[in-house]
Amino acid sequence: MSKLVIVGTVAFDAIETPFGKTDKILGGAATYIGLSASQFDADGAIVSVVGGDFPQSDIDMLVSKGMNVEGLEIVKDGKTFFWSGKYHNDMNTRDTLATELNVLETFNPVVPESYKDAEVVMLGNLHPMVQMGVINQMKNPKMVVLDTMNFWMDIALDDLKKVIAKVDVITINDEEARQLSGEYSLVNASKKIMEMGPQYVVIKKGEHGALIFHKEEMFFAPALPLAEVFDPTGAGDTFAGGFTGYLAKTGDYSFENMKRAIIYGSCLASFCVEKFGTERMENLSKKEVEERLEKFQRLTQFELNT
Amino acid sequence: MSKLVIVGTVAFDAIETPFGKTDKILGGAATYIGLSASQFDADGAIVSVVGGDFPQSDIDMLVSKGMNVEGLEIVKDGKTFFWSGKYHNDMNTRDTLATELNVLETFNPVVPESYKDAEVVMLGNLHPMVQMGVINQMKNPKMVVLDTMNFWMDIALDDLKKVIAKVDVITINDEEARQLSGEYSLVNASKKIMEMGPQYVVIKKGEHGALIFHKEEMFFAPALPLAEVFDPTGAGDTFAGGFTGYLAKTGDYSFENMKRAIIYGSCLASFCVEKFGTERMENLSKKEVEERLEKFQRLTQFELNT
Repeated sequence: MSKLVIVGTVAFDAIETPFGKTDKILGGAATYIGLSASQFDADGAIVSVVGGDFPQSDIDMLVSKGMNVEGLEIVKDGKTFFWSGKYHNDMNTRDTLATELNVLETFNPVVPESYKDAEVVMLGNLHPMVQMGVINQMKNPKMVVLDTMNFWMDIALDDLKKVIAKVDVITINDEEARQLSGEYSLVNASKKIMEMGPQYVVIKKGEHGALIFHKEEMFFAPALPLAEVFDPTGAGDTFAGGFTGYLAKTGDYSFENMKRAIIYGSCLASFCVEKFGTERMENLSKKEVEERLEKFQRLTQFELNT
Repeated sequence: MSKLVIVGTVAFDAIETPFGKTDKILGGAATYIGLSASQFDADGAIVSVVGGDFPQSDIDMLVSKGMNVEGLEIVKDGKTFFWSGKYHNDMNTRDTLATELNVLETFNPVVPESYKDAEVVMLGNLHPMVQMGVINQMKNPKMVVLDTMNFWMDIALDDLKKVIAKVDVITINDEEARQLSGEYSLVNASKKIMEMGPQYVVIKKGEHGALIFHKEEMFFAPALPLAEVFDPTGAGDTFAGGFTGYLAKTGDYSFENMKRAIIYGSCLASFCVEKFGTERMENLSKKEVEERLEKFQRLTQFELNT
């Protein structure tokens, strides 16, 4: 069991999908990552910031899942980061209706002293310089995983490239991989991105699954085909939480174990989308996860008669 | 080893992709299906029609691959079906530049007497009533596989539904599955389509792989991520040829064997796109296929530490 540092937003979201809409509910990358990683009883610490308007009950919930919150700064007279979005009918695209940075504008992450020796670091989507600030506090991490998005490629590419050069794994979606590399083929895109620093490139394709590339190897984890996708919010972060949670639990950073880690990530993400917000992840049993893993096995495992 | 009847176009194609363009080259659904099935030394018969302009050398090539061509009608004073298309930069979409039905307009398929007892029938994309004409000539087929497309849903839906009610397997792409079923989720779409008749629904997602549904079960075969896709023409037919060729070779119609069959289909399709037209499929060794199957295994097979 290794320690896991999770950096990212802890936020309020207001979400509209074809199935309904929510008022302000709990959201944020670090929240989803933490909930997902907690399935492995990960010794995780959330490094983030919220305002005085953030309910103690949500903090208590994260603590009840085993998350250390020493690094969750509370700015009493500030407001929590707020994001609002509306999904299109295909659930693959969405419009952002509002982004209020609030306390995030001046966020200066502080990793708790007792987690500076963590082996696994999950850098959720944030400004690259904030992510770099966390890397610089770590003593000797074995596996630093970076999540980012096209927004930072558009406005802070130089900073982003500096962070990319420092990490072991990058997780981005297919369009972002193409934008970052200038290559359409994901095989070529991953090669170019590996040249920027990371030894491992994870490309998230949403409902089409995820690929992990490492040197000349690649592995694919499908997304579980679902009858209904209720709310895709947080699926990518849940994937990242499952991936890093499993790595931290096992302390095994071989490619074989990375394969299992993205299967776990994909498995957990398949739950996240079943209900609005964090609801499904807050109420998810290990038994349900094990049963769904069996579904993944039946979905992909075959034997050749040779 | 069971017999395999293959119905579909034998055609000329002129193709333009971002990598170049061709004059009239050999194409057609039955051609790709036959070439792919020939990898299993399938005892296959091609039922189709060409004009007097069709080169004997192409017929000889199909015969050299083990295809029976008694059912390949030659209309001496007619012209071979011609299709021309141009792919967009993403290779996932294309514009049809020309479609000249020619001899296909009056095509009346005749299954050779010695193949009327074939166990496996592959109905390549054609007018549903032509496909029905073939079904009606078969004595007691065990596995009738239907490929179709949105074009027939638009202009001949009633006829198409009659054929769908008669077949064991339907292969269509994701958008077509949605159109046919009125369901966005592929899980729900496949359920609706199974209610129309087929026990098995294969949904082709192009570069995102293929799903097979049967009762409550599903299985997923990824597409091999490739550095370059040179020409996607015929990939779906090559997939279908691998699927049915493998079923005919093994004579095993269990769901377990169907899984292997779509892996083989996906494997063969990954070769088809590497060169223009049929070139790669005409020059493909069993050794290359076996090596690529190993790549599919490395791409998808994992072991859980439980």
